[in-house]
Parts: sequence; C-alpha cells; structure tokens
Amino acid sequence: MKAKKYVVKNYFKGLPKREDYELVEYELPPLQDGEILIKTEWISVDPYLRAYNSSNKIPYDQFGFQVGTVQESKNPKFPVGAKVVTHKGWCDYTIAKEGLEDRFSGYIYKLPNLDGLSPSLAIGAIGMPGITAYYGFLDICKPKAGETVVVTGAAGAVGSIVGQIAKIKGCKVIGFAGSDDKVQWLEEELGFDKAINYKTADVSKALKEAAPNGVDCYFDNVGGEISSIIINQMNTYGRVSVCGSISAYNEDASKLPKATILQPALVFKQISVRGFLIWEWFDGKKEVEAIAQLTQWIKSGQIKVKEHVTKGFENLFDAFIGMLAGENTGKAVVKV
Amino acid sequence: MKAKKYVVKNYFKGLPKREDYELVEYELPPLQDGEILIKTEWISVDPYLRAYNSSNKIPYDQFGFQVGTVQESKNPKFPVGAKVVTHKGWCDYTIAKEGLEDRFSGYIYKLPNLDGLSPSLAIGAIGMPGITAYYGFLDICKPKAGETVVVTGAAGAVGSIVGQIAKIKGCKVIGFAGSDDKVQWLEEELGFDKAINYKTADVSKALKEAAPNGVDCYFDNVGGEISSIIINQMNTYGRVSVCGSISAYNEDASKLPKATILQPALVFKQISVRGFLIWEWFDGKKEVEAIAQLTQWIKSGQIKVKEHVTKGFENLFDAFIGMLAGENTGKAVVKV
Repeated sequence: MKAKKYVVKNYFKGLPKREDYELVEYELPPLQDGEILIKTEWISVDPYLRAYNSSNKIPYDQFGFQVGTVQESKNPKFPVGAKVVTHKGWCDYTIAKEGLEDRFSGYIYKLPNLDGLSPSLAIGAIGMPGITAYYGFLDICKPKAGETVVVTGAAGAVGSIVGQIAKIKGCKVIGFAGSDDKVQWLEEELGFDKAINYKTADVSKALKEAAPNGVDCYFDNVGGEISSIIINQMNTYGRVSVCGSISAYNEDASKLPKATILQPALVFKQISVRGFLIWEWFDGKKEVEAIAQLTQWIKSGQIKVKEHVTKGFENLFDAFIGMLAGENTGKAVVKV
Repeated sequence: MKAKKYVVKNYFKGLPKREDYELVEYELPPLQDGEILIKTEWISVDPYLRAYNSSNKIPYDQFGFQVGTVQESKNPKFPVGAKVVTHKGWCDYTIAKEGLEDRFSGYIYKLPNLDGLSPSLAIGAIGMPGITAYYGFLDICKPKAGETVVVTGAAGAVGSIVGQIAKIKGCKVIGFAGSDDKVQWLEEELGFDKAINYKTADVSKALKEAAPNGVDCYFDNVGGEISSIIINQMNTYGRVSVCGSISAYNEDASKLPKATILQPALVFKQISVRGFLIWEWFDGKKEVEAIAQLTQWIKSGQIKVKEHVTKGFENLFDAFIGMLAGENTGKAVVKV
C-alpha cells in the first residue's frame, strides 16, 4: 500500500523553508515478524525538530512524536486497533518495530488509559513535553513551597505545564510569553501569579516588580538576553533548568548570538545551571510514573491543557513554522 | 600605639585608582578581653577585592587575608608569638577578635604547622585560594581519571593549584594564561599537558587541537567569550565550576559585557554549571582537611607553588593592580 512522508532534503538556513522538505509517496513493504502498520492520527511539532536538523544526515525522514492506530500487526503486544505512540514523525502510514538500534526509530509504546482524554495529549501534556516539564523542573529546580519560579516560553507545550506544576508545589510563578493573549491565558486560566509579554515590557523592570524578593528557580526554554536578565535577578543558591534555547534555534551554530555574561551572577549568587535532554529520564519506568501523575493532575483540573490544533497532513510544515514563530498557545499538534 | 591601614573611599570605576584609597594613620585602642594585637607580615591581593567593592558601604577598610604574629594577647588561644591568619586586610598592625557578628572580621585561626614552608602560603596555596581550588574543583567538577580538564586563569593563585590537583587525579590538563612565560611555566614546571596563551592563540582552534576528544571539566576563573568557546567544546555531561569572572570585574555591574550564549551547548550536551563562593565549604572542619591535604601535596612535590612577591606595605596598591592586570605568575602576595 501507498504511504506518504516528509523528507528533509536540506540543512536549514535560518527558518526552515518549504522547499527544504519533499513530500514523498512510496510503497510500504509487507510486514515482517514483530512489525506493526500504523495509521497516523496526531503529529507533534516541537522546537527540537529544528534544533536537531544539523546533527542528522540529509536526506532524512522528519522525525517527531505521533499517535496512531495499529492497522495490521505481527506483534501481539500491539494488536490491531491499539493506539500507539512512536517517534515516526511526519507520515500518514508507517511501519514500526520495537527496540531497534536507533533508540528513537525503535521507540514505541501503547497509549495508557487516558479515561476519555484526547489521545493527542499523549504527544503533549501526557507525553514527551509533559514529562520534560515534570522531571526538568522538579528534578533540576527542586522547588520548595513559597519560592519564586520564573518560566520563559511559558505559554508553550512545556512551559505551561512547568508553571502549573510549580503552582501545585506552592510556588509563586511568573511567566514570560510573547503576546497579550498568551499573558491573559496564563494569568486567568492557568493561575500564574504574573505573566509578562516580553515583547512589549521592560523585562528587567517588570521582573523586579513581579519578584521583589528575587527569583529562586528559573526554567529556561529560550536562552539569550532574557535569560541573562532573569539570572541576574536570582537569589543565592538559585537553580536554573535549561530545557531549550528556541531564541537561537534558527541561528547557524557557528554564529550564535551574544548576551550579557552569566558568570558574575553565577559566582556571587552560587547558582546552579543544568542543561538537560529528557531522554536522560527515559528508563522505561520514570516515563510511566510521570504520565500517571500528569494524567491525574489533568483529570483533577489541577493542570489545564490547551492545544493549538492544525488540521491536515498537508499543513504540517505551516504548523511547524507557526510553532517556531510562537503562534501557538499551548501544545502545537497536527490532526491528520 | 600607631597603626596604618588602607581605607577605600570610593566605588571603583573601571580599574581601581590610587586616589580611591587613603592611607590612614590612627591610634590603636588598648586591648579588651578576647582581643589580640597582630603585626602583619604577609598580605594577600586577590580578584575578589575588586569584585566586592560595590557591595560594601564606603568608606571601608580594605579587607583581605593576611598573616601576622601576635604581639599582645588577651586570648589564651592565641598567645604572643603565635602566627595567625585573619581577614583584616591592608594594615600594618591590627586588633582582632574571634567570632564577631561580621563573619570575616571575626575570622581568625592559628597557622597550622607548615614544617618549614613559608607562612605566606597560608594566604595562598594552603589558604583560601588553595581551598578554593580544592573544593571548587573536586566537589563541583568531580573529575575522573582520564578526563580532559580545562582551566582559565591557569597561572593564577587558584588556577595553578586546580591544574595540579587535576594532574594528581589522573586527568589531562589544558590551561589558558595570558603570557608566553606563564605558558612555559605551566607546561615545564607544573606539568600541564598543554598551556595556551589566550592573547595570541586562536582559542577555539587551539583548544580543538589540544582536546580533540572534547572537554569534560572546566574550571572557570575568567568568564566572558573564552568561557563560551570552551563550553561549546564540552562533552556530554560536562561539568563547569565557575570560580570567578575576572574578565568582567572592572566593569560596571549594570553594563556587563556580552558573550556567545551558552544555552544551546548546555542543553544538547546536558552540561552542569555551578558558581560558587568558597565560604560554602568553611565549616571549621573542611578547611582543615583541605589544608592538610594541600600541605602534604606541596611537601611531597606533587604541587609546586610559586609566589609573586611585592615588597613593602606602601606598594600594596600597585601589587593589587598588577594582579588584576595579570602580571603575577602564581599567587600575588605583599611582604610587609
């Protein structure tokens, strides 16, 4: 049978361009033992798809998390009709097999029981982005009740969950986002104590007003000058979790931007900074724990989830570019 | 009796100036119970004297570590003739008392038995700088044998000890310093595997050649662009200990320089960065442990010590400025 997939043909220069992708139609081979045929239903677009472009050999199939339904199966663990999460990315049908040498190609698990929640959450708040928020914030920032937490990219898939987990843990939460609508959503719907539009505010001044006692934890999704400003307002023994640097993802790695140096603040405030990739925590058990906790928080209403849904397999590229430009509030997903 | 001390009258602008200091002669009061009168013999000049200027209320007595001999005593712990280390700074005679509210004014301890080594080492390799190297490197970088360690400010009081401890721990050690003489000393006398003159070398290229397998630990004394370059060449799970940022100490805190952002490297290499002040480790026991180990290493020849000695109480200011300009190889001290 025929399948379609997006192949990345070029190394991106700046923002990815439509012509960097080729939509390829090809014939799927018959299933081998252990394999399953998946029909894709939801596809995730995330910042790391941009960031990892340069470390892959072109051409490559555009990877990414997706949810689909098993159509044919030669693996009893994943029977026909089962919903599965894989890292098979931008394709309408695909063949998957567990435990391949390439960790991500071989990544596959059965959707946990979401009790009526949308399966799309399995690639969002109850999937990689949610798990990223959970461990990246809790294990690295080690927040204590009463502390002040700052999140950048606060209206994004990860940031919006981080802020709500911080509220659950009894922290004061300040979020930075890139539009007044996002700011309103963070404050009015998600319960952030304060949200600030970094595009229009004097970031340093606004943060001093919002956090007069200084910042204890900083969850950094963006990098760049805003992060320098925030780190310079941190308290002694502050903790910084560096999840991403979307502000620089469209830059040539050899021409990264400059920002105010961090070292004086790091020394005099004895600050810890830890960059991380969520795969560190993927050991087969920890993901399950995080998923269970996140699911419970969502069901109880303690975490609210918003998705920015783009419809149509043919609109994947636009959804990706829109996410990189910050058009999404909440998790950007594509419904095939 | 009369005593002399240097008083800081101004907040420094850029490099400290001679007129920012006033040499004050004054009458010492009679000793009270618990107090001792010290005649200063050795005074330390260190980068943090510059860095802490803005956080003190002017005018203030120029603090700093010093070694002296007890001349009069109303404290049986410190009898006449005993050598003591205090933080009393730039003065020829001073009265000291233990355990004052101000932790540093009240800092005083009896010189350990140095078995014939110069008492000046108690404000250098066997004092605060040595202890800084010991814990700042071992506890934060957690070096493993075979790993590659980079040190900036490598010919300074702290950096030169860090590099030698790294060699003792079986690491490959690369040092950056600011003159060919320092480079030669590091390679030929201290046993660094490679030393690089950052003022004349292409830092990125030289480091790639010296560390073709990447950098595992980085002990940062300087901050700024060189640190960005080094961190961008670190391996997965690299550890950075940020001890100082001398490259920025003469800058106005509100106008810190910019350097290439660190966040992309921190994320993709899952790097930990920890700024520290050595006081964290000062608990009355840990200093003693470090001093004992450093003394043993120095006596056994595993750590070589060099001092850059300026003679004369009247030359303290010049010694300080010279140290900030990098004129010293090894520990800068003043012999009164």
